[in-house]
Amino acid sequence: MEVDALVFDVFGTLVDWRSSLIDDLTEFGRRRGFEVQWMEFVEAWRGEYLPSMDRVRYGQRPWTSLDTLHRESFDVLADRFGFGKQLDEDARRWCVLRWHHLRPWPDTVPGLTRLRERRITATLSNGNMRLLIDLARNAPLPMDAILSAELFHHYKPDPEVYRGAVELLATSAERVMLVAAHPLDLRAAQAQGLRTAFVSRPLEHGPKEPPKDEPGDEFDFAVKSLEELAQKLESSA
Amino acid sequence: MEVDALVFDVFGTLVDWRSSLIDDLTEFGRRRGFEVQWMEFVEAWRGEYLPSMDRVRYGQRPWTSLDTLHRESFDVLADRFGFGKQLDEDARRWCVLRWHHLRPWPDTVPGLTRLRERRITATLSNGNMRLLIDLARNAPLPMDAILSAELFHHYKPDPEVYRGAVELLATSAERVMLVAAHPLDLRAAQAQGLRTAFVSRPLEHGPKEPPKDEPGDEFDFAVKSLEELAQKLESSA
Repeated sequence: MEVDALVFDVFGTLVDWRSSLIDDLTEFGRRRGFEVQWMEFVEAWRGEYLPSMDRVRYGQRPWTSLDTLHRESFDVLADRFGFGKQLDEDARRWCVLRWHHLRPWPDTVPGLTRLRERRITATLSNGNMRLLIDLARNAPLPMDAILSAELFHHYKPDPEVYRGAVELLATSAERVMLVAAHPLDLRAAQAQGLRTAFVSRPLEHGPKEPPKDEPGDEFDFAVKSLEELAQKLESSA
Repeated sequence: MEVDALVFDVFGTLVDWRSSLIDDLTEFGRRRGFEVQWMEFVEAWRGEYLPSMDRVRYGQRPWTSLDTLHRESFDVLADRFGFGKQLDEDARRWCVLRWHHLRPWPDTVPGLTRLRERRITATLSNGNMRLLIDLARNAPLPMDAILSAELFHHYKPDPEVYRGAVELLATSAERVMLVAAHPLDLRAAQAQGLRTAFVSRPLEHGPKEPPKDEPGDEFDFAVKSLEELAQKLESSA
């Protein structure tokens, strides 16, 4: 197996969106004196992620960036959780920008650093370019390129995203490996001929909700950290 | 003036294509015993750059990546310079890949490092994505993102490239600055509302051929190095 480039899912795979958002919004609410269940709010916000993209994927609306989808679902949920009326435009923008400042998992930066020594590393995320550029700067994530669903005007798991990444990397599908914590994403990449590495992130949805869909041996690798993936790729070379 | 992102022309502006290619091909010819005027060859190769892109820009052929254009002009010139028959496929590929390994000017890496501290840095080049990814890895160029004409299927100075970069950076044109050694490129960016910084590269075409088109005060900045640009941006902030 020869792999030129590793492309990474970001939310959940490289960064801990849940605890980052809960921490930032809890602090935001504390400063303003809001009584909100922030854990529930964040889970509801993330809950809108797939349905909001599906409306784009199934042609019910034209291409819309994830920042815009996040903003729309934030506005709806802020009203539902009872603090919408107390927010001005700047506060809303600040909250939606929290997605540009998510914290990496402990193994993310050392793992990427090691993986990048021998292979191209790039994001391949549903986040829009600016979100991913900011996130990679802030974390910081060692990346050679930022690739986003926005470049193809298709959201994962649409096949155009995986095929588009292979085309921009100017190589063949079997020399590109998707690294992700989500079997749905990996299976869609596999269907387009990409290599796949599953990395388990048991805390993505919090300590009380372990992932439902734990894959067997259907992917090229199944690892518990990016450092373990680096090790396995090195010993398979 | 508030600038969120600096986008950089690459060939000539950040890297010294001419001396890098002459050195690599001279060494290549020496090992194979070819008697070729490599300086003339490299200048002829670069001479095909604009006409080959113009055939795409004016719709005489569909989108074609710069790697492919380089390969086509290499093949024609190798025959014209009399060594084409002695080259196999691997040798041709190796020669065309030299564009992925160009050396930065002495101020490029320290200048980019300093500029990147406060602002997003990205390429905005006619090189295709893989060429730019490899080049940025090899130099290495401190970049937050690789943006390429390939993403828009238009070559600079087509307006789609500048407008496309602004859109992906999710900001307004006047908060993006193009940094380039070529007035043609800068004027096209300016026409789309971008800020502009001219960096002079008197050696781009060799010590005997100083640039013909030295701009006056038509751009926001005119500097002799990226470090000087960092200094000027810091004192204007």
